[in-house]
Amino acid sequence: MPINVTVFGENIHERENPLVAEIYPIGMHGCIAAALNRDSELRANAVTQDQPEHGLTEQVLERTDVLTWWGHVGNGLVDDRIVERVHKRVLEGMGLIVLHSGHGSKIFKRLMGTGCDLTWRIADERERVWVCNPGHAIAQGIGATNFTIDREEMYGEPFGIPNPEEVVFLSWFQGGEVFRSGVTYRRGAGKIFYFRPGHETYPTYHHPIVQRVLTNAVHWARPEGRFPLGCAHVPVEQATERFVVDEVPAR
Amino acid sequence: MPINVTVFGENIHERENPLVAEIYPIGMHGCIAAALNRDSELRANAVTQDQPEHGLTEQVLERTDVLTWWGHVGNGLVDDRIVERVHKRVLEGMGLIVLHSGHGSKIFKRLMGTGCDLTWRIADERERVWVCNPGHAIAQGIGATNFTIDREEMYGEPFGIPNPEEVVFLSWFQGGEVFRSGVTYRRGAGKIFYFRPGHETYPTYHHPIVQRVLTNAVHWARPEGRFPLGCAHVPVEQATERFVVDEVPAR
Amino acid sequence: MPINVTVFGENIHERENPLVAEIYPIGMHGCIAAALNRDSELRANAVTQDQPEHGLTEQVLERTDVLTWWGHVGNGLVDDRIVERVHKRVLEGMGLIVLHSGHGSKIFKRLMGTGCDLTWRIADERERVWVCNPGHAIAQGIGATNFTIDREEMYGEPFGIPNPEEVVFLSWFQGGEVFRSGVTYRRGAGKIFYFRPGHETYPTYHHPIVQRVLTNAVHWARPEGRFPLGCAHVPVEQATERFVVDEVPAR
Amino acid sequence: MPINVTVFGENIHERENPLVAEIYPIGMHGCIAAALNRDSELRANAVTQDQPEHGLTEQVLERTDVLTWWGHVGNGLVDDRIVERVHKRVLEGMGLIVLHSGHGSKIFKRLMGTGCDLTWRIADERERVWVCNPGHAIAQGIGATNFTIDREEMYGEPFGIPNPEEVVFLSWFQGGEVFRSGVTYRRGAGKIFYFRPGHETYPTYHHPIVQRVLTNAVHWARPEGRFPLGCAHVPVEQATERFVVDEVPAR
Repeated sequence: MPINVTVFGENIHERENPLVAEIYPIGMHGCIAAALNRDSELRANAVTQDQPEHGLTEQVLERTDVLTWWGHVGNGLVDDRIVERVHKRVLEGMGLIVLHSGHGSKIFKRLMGTGCDLTWRIADERERVWVCNPGHAIAQGIGATNFTIDREEMYGEPFGIPNPEEVVFLSWFQGGEVFRSGVTYRRGAGKIFYFRPGHETYPTYHHPIVQRVLTNAVHWARPEGRFPLGCAHVPVEQATERFVVDEVPAR
Repeated sequence: MPINVTVFGENIHERENPLVAEIYPIGMHGCIAAALNRDSELRANAVTQDQPEHGLTEQVLERTDVLTWWGHVGNGLVDDRIVERVHKRVLEGMGLIVLHSGHGSKIFKRLMGTGCDLTWRIADERERVWVCNPGHAIAQGIGATNFTIDREEMYGEPFGIPNPEEVVFLSWFQGGEVFRSGVTYRRGAGKIFYFRPGHETYPTYHHPIVQRVLTNAVHWARPEGRFPLGCAHVPVEQATERFVVDEVPAR
Repeated sequence: MPINVTVFGENIHERENPLVAEIYPIGMHGCIAAALNRDSELRANAVTQDQPEHGLTEQVLERTDVLTWWGHVGNGLVDDRIVERVHKRVLEGMGLIVLHSGHGSKIFKRLMGTGCDLTWRIADERERVWVCNPGHAIAQGIGATNFTIDREEMYGEPFGIPNPEEVVFLSWFQGGEVFRSGVTYRRGAGKIFYFRPGHETYPTYHHPIVQRVLTNAVHWARPEGRFPLGCAHVPVEQATERFVVDEVPAR
Repeated sequence: MPINVTVFGENIHERENPLVAEIYPIGMHGCIAAALNRDSELRANAVTQDQPEHGLTEQVLERTDVLTWWGHVGNGLVDDRIVERVHKRVLEGMGLIVLHSGHGSKIFKRLMGTGCDLTWRIADERERVWVCNPGHAIAQGIGATNFTIDREEMYGEPFGIPNPEEVVFLSWFQGGEVFRSGVTYRRGAGKIFYFRPGHETYPTYHHPIVQRVLTNAVHWARPEGRFPLGCAHVPVEQATERFVVDEVPAR
């Protein structure tokens, strides 16, 4: 059974910055969706923020197994109702992969409960991504203990996130900083992976190992089950154990 | 140096339900504050939702080391701006102790990132609270591996929270349910403790062991340090390491 | 590709206690292996402690994807060299499912790093197993928020384990205790699941939901990748970055 | 009430390597104990592996609140009975701070349950230690988001440890590696902190910020309570709830 992936992109830099348009003629979302579709078990579709309901209608989300999210300058412009909708679907079991500047998206901050702040610098510097757990599903097929991205934006600690379930990747930057670049969470039934690389002015999403990590992450994040929402009342007569009020306990 | 505690109560049941008013003539918030003030290291002040800014002005929060929160029917009526303010203070380092139906408060759901759903029943049933980690600071002075609350509301699993840093207490209910009743988290610099017991129609906050747990929790949750908020830009010339763009790496 | 499961049983009670032999004519290990083999994706083989090398030779372990472990009176008699061998395989990526009194096995205590102590009572009492995360892979197909085992041994908190990655199940007991009955861990590349039910004098492993949980757990614990062991030396000339000793840093 | 600290050093390099003896005339253990004793709330005593029972007699451990551990070439020579003794005390509540090559000590591997492997290089390179959670007790008083150690041994990921309770520090190395340099755990009632820096041929333990971190860590790791060891039997007649065997449940 294929895994249905929806690839969300804000699609702003691609239209407004010729450099980005040149690197990503079909958008970062298009590039990511194409990479995922090279895996025959995945069915990836790109949607963009400028579409009605940001392309994330109830129907689209209901049939989405895993959603990937790239946002940056448009983070604050995402409709709160759509954020609610995505949030609800993650708690129910939809996987979510948050990319790079999506650390500042409403949906990521909403799920983390923190500010997700970090330090940053854009200086064409080298990033080395190290594998902390070579046995983790997301780190398979990399073929080494680390991989290099020749030019990237720097993100540095402190990264204002809750302690992750697992730190899969750590990054080293030429300018002296380090960063928890690949971290996993479970919220409700939903599995969440944040992956750092991907500044719009660099060809990061063309990088074969980055594509491999994203493909792995989609497989890892596929729904395992459903977490029913809401607070159910359990009347006394439906309690699993009968009990008599005022019955005297043993001690 | 004393620990400044602000005890937030919504103060609705106490005014509208004579039974609650009888059990808590000075409000649940008044009862809790009085209990905390019996510890000479604590300075507890009660505030209520009906006060201007819910009693949680910038000045009050700035000097608050630990905030305790009881809310129920008023959960949805709390001003979003005050929620933001409390959220920011927790991330910066203020401790937060969320009580009973405060599981449904805006601030708890905001910090957890989940729905915090549970199942429930009000049937005067017995609750047994078990200590999972007798060595935890919050579980000191209980004098046994468990304690009993003769009549309480039932809360049952599944409890829609992120996996806790530590499960300090688990509850057993007469009707057959179980619940993670005492759980800890760290969000930003803030330490958070959720404690289940405390339905308004029962004298739970008069229970000496419950009071002891709350006192322990305040000590545990006192601020350790401050987590600066915001995303700082680190220009190249301020990077800790000098680097030359396009410098060829070793391999 | 099938998942190869090795089902380890100490096979002592089955031979020495006629009651156990009657409930489990082919041993608890035989019963569990048969249940797992009903899933066409699993290839389960039972081994017992009385076999040479406890049936856990290098070859057997090398081709084992997931090992299940039931031990009790024989816990202390397991050869330390076999414990080492299993431990190494778990860190490398083999899944491990520890059952009931296996909480006291050398391999579980070795992997947890703690004493794994608990309280206990054998009194034919009712156990209710509650699902804490209905969305977790291990909790699928149960069809309700809880299931009942009519008669079981009681295990109670405090359970001396490290805080789990996820608490999947909690148990309620008739006598008033509670227990973290289904907990997950990751150690090295290995995924570990501890599952409480299964005292030898009760037909617990014939229970269809218990069998379903075990089958789910095997799928969940299958290896994701391999974690190479040992401390590798990385000589300067193989460092990913060239650096000059005594080079003056920026600041 | 002062915190009693025992500072364990293997005291081998100091006696055998003139360079180390010159940097640490009173041993690394002596240097660390002296640094801790500058805090008026601490009472630190150094013990060494060449003393009877490695200086860690029952009496010494019973009155120790926090133990710090530096070991390297002598890691494998530590008496297993002493390891058992320390392990028991940690589970009961004694704090433990493991330093640098103590990652390979029997006691650390015993508590972690993993191999604690890492990669390494000795090349006089620069280490930058970054604070991941500026609000954590262990990170107070550093005065910046990172600090520098001019020359140190490199330790690199993957670091074979269980996912920590909190990652307090991450290290950057000149040669391109990164490492989780400050991580916390709770095992039983004991709080554990691993801190990376401290190769014997560098003056790391004279570094004022390193000394500050160690002092903070001792305060953080002081015992909160005691976790009783052993599996207690709870007879039916002592169960908190009376129950009748074969009583028919509600459903």
